Amino acid sequence: MPPGAPRATVVLTGNELLDGRTRDSNGAFVCEDLSRRGVKVMESLTVADDRERFSACLRHALENEPDLLVLGGGLGTTHDDLTAECLAEVLGVPLEEDPRALAWVEEKMREVAARRRLDFDALFVLARRQARLPAGSTPVPPAGVAPGIAARAGTTRIFAYPGVPYEFRHMWLETAASLERDGFFPDVAVRTVRIFGVGELQVGPVLDALPQDRVELGITVGGGEVTVRLRNRREAAAEAQADDLVAALEAAVPVYSTDGRTVDDLVADGLRSRGATLAVAESCTGGLLGARLTARPGSSDYFVGGVISYSNQAKMDLLGVPADMLTRHGAVSEEVAAAMAEGARAALRADFALSITGVAGPDGGTPEKPVGLVYLGCAGPDGTRVRRNGHPADRDTVRTFSATSALHLLLAGLAP
Amino acid sequence: MPPGAPRATVVLTGNELLDGRTRDSNGAFVCEDLSRRGVKVMESLTVADDRERFSACLRHALENEPDLLVLGGGLGTTHDDLTAECLAEVLGVPLEEDPRALAWVEEKMREVAARRRLDFDALFVLARRQARLPAGSTPVPPAGVAPGIAARAGTTRIFAYPGVPYEFRHMWLETAASLERDGFFPDVAVRTVRIFGVGELQVGPVLDALPQDRVELGITVGGGEVTVRLRNRREAAAEAQADDLVAALEAAVPVYSTDGRTVDDLVADGLRSRGATLAVAESCTGGLLGARLTARPGSSDYFVGGVISYSNQAKMDLLGVPADMLTRHGAVSEEVAAAMAEGARAALRADFALSITGVAGPDGGTPEKPVGLVYLGCAGPDGTRVRRNGHPADRDTVRTFSATSALHLLLAGLAP
Repeated sequence: MPPGAPRATVVLTGNELLDGRTRDSNGAFVCEDLSRRGVKVMESLTVADDRERFSACLRHALENEPDLLVLGGGLGTTHDDLTAECLAEVLGVPLEEDPRALAWVEEKMREVAARRRLDFDALFVLARRQARLPAGSTPVPPAGVAPGIAARAGTTRIFAYPGVPYEFRHMWLETAASLERDGFFPDVAVRTVRIFGVGELQVGPVLDALPQDRVELGITVGGGEVTVRLRNRREAAAEAQADDLVAALEAAVPVYSTDGRTVDDLVADGLRSRGATLAVAESCTGGLLGARLTARPGSSDYFVGGVISYSNQAKMDLLGVPADMLTRHGAVSEEVAAAMAEGARAALRADFALSITGVAGPDGGTPEKPVGLVYLGCAGPDGTRVRRNGHPADRDTVRTFSATSALHLLLAGLAP
Repeated sequence: MPPGAPRATVVLTGNELLDGRTRDSNGAFVCEDLSRRGVKVMESLTVADDRERFSACLRHALENEPDLLVLGGGLGTTHDDLTAECLAEVLGVPLEEDPRALAWVEEKMREVAARRRLDFDALFVLARRQARLPAGSTPVPPAGVAPGIAARAGTTRIFAYPGVPYEFRHMWLETAASLERDGFFPDVAVRTVRIFGVGELQVGPVLDALPQDRVELGITVGGGEVTVRLRNRREAAAEAQADDLVAALEAAVPVYSTDGRTVDDLVADGLRSRGATLAVAESCTGGLLGARLTARPGSSDYFVGGVISYSNQAKMDLLGVPADMLTRHGAVSEEVAAAMAEGARAALRADFALSITGVAGPDGGTPEKPVGLVYLGCAGPDGTRVRRNGHPADRDTVRTFSATSALHLLLAGLAP
């Protein structure tokens, strides 16, 4: 992060986050959002629902005098919900019932009671607890039932939200919009460069050969891609340095996107702008590519469907792959990948079709066809292309990488 | 956790974990593993690659005198890799080159140099740094290149591993096996009760009506299921209390598993023990159910494939859904769900077939067929059953819940 960026700390509370029951999503969300806004997150602390440890964590967080302290969880109605209490203790103030918070809680509980046909008074006795805030703090309007808390400790702005992901996200984004209006976030430019076809070892030296003291660089490797994120203040010298770094990457390695769009975005945009349709034929991925394509709202504009041809019988019956081709070359072969793509294109009446057939492992590999060997096919109006992948890895990695590779094969065919 | 359980703290380091580039997996893994072994994780701290904050985090963690402190990341070859240095500072000892660690690093770097045809000496100059450990600590054999560190601070056992997930997991599991042999972990019984068809509000009161002071209960809600985890020491009084809680749940709510097996496990086991095959026909899930079924190694024993019938044309062409049925009832209907399942069963020559058709949203909902309305079909040797889901939610939740519901529909049909 460029020098002078605001610094933030995140504190999450909840036993379920520490015993394997629930995987954190709030911390990941707010860290990414803060980072995108030019804030440097120094620490993200997850602590059990334990009065002493929670308070110790808050003290530790405040010692560092971050500009922002974001808290998630612990604002519910049970005795395990300790955020207001621990925050009050650390700030050295008592808890007080806040009239605005109380009015919000009452309104929300009347809605809940009416919807679920429950007794309002019984619910309100419990929920009323959520209107008790550290003295001097301000309630944040709830997205669910529990109000949040806005407070100050020295120069640190503190915001606490409930742990329910929908509520946390909604309330944080409201706060962020208000901080944005106050000019809290620095004027930072973020660029994301996406690279497919080489590894980190080929990317690093390209960057290291150029000055980069005005740009914060982050390199990530995952799903068979290398992603370089550049962040800099919006000022001429820093912008020029970032421009040079991006240009050097484009000259040296296979950059496919410099505007943040993923291969999924580019495939969707490319199909839509051509008015073209897509089908899939999946063997070892079993539907993963189709699931990924349809994760996007509106994908029915271009995605028509596909065939999961996990068995050889299905490859023959539904995709018209010839039996003797399967016998001669095996299901994991260039020939079958091409026939699957062509079969799906015909069966689904699509403009393009992608196929995937391979050995995902952990079993089923042979010396000739080891785990990780995957053939990808792309059939389109201009013919059929096949690509071979051969990286040994675990089942999940092989499958994910296969889906990504298939999208890149299509993207190359969609290029104007 | 029962009283007296060992307590652990986890500290992860890496800027990429705090700026949205990489989602943590090591912390989630070790927290779950520790919890399963009867250890209470009090805090999981993620800190930037910053000398001062990292040391402050370690001091904060040690102040609490946990029985175990597990560190992940910061053991690489660059100046951002601060774990050995910060640990030495906090322990008040110098860094020293450890001969055993050095021998391991040298051996590993010779392998890397040979495999990638790189210059060993140039690599070793950088990698040698990884053999410098806090004085008095013990090197942990590497799974990749970097050795881990085993140290002590008072009664706290400290273990540090590289952040590469494969290395972290492998090395932690080696350590855990050795701690197991030392009798470090308490003798804890863990039971997992899985419930489908009711919400948390129906489950909580069943548990609250019984004594539970000898059992730690954890309730999780997700993917349309409620999961109750019971942990207790292996002693008669605690076991009896846990037995009573499980029995009460089985009597009051639709418990489908008490041995930890998920619906995915039970479907796989059920199909395998019957020697039956399964196909899918997916509309709004677009392949998600197929991808989930084939995520399991060996699924080709019973899963033959399916049709992703995202468009109406695909429903007609590949599954034989009659055009007038689609016109009369719409694609999201009981009739079409049944026809899709029957069509997939025939087209894939399977014993059973599951179908999913619904409105995943966020667009496409109408007053009659709102977002979240999903019909699931199951066709089998004894006929076809259809189930209707109607919970409004976001696209991802609707799709995941639909796949889970479809598996439960099949499970009910597989019951002996």
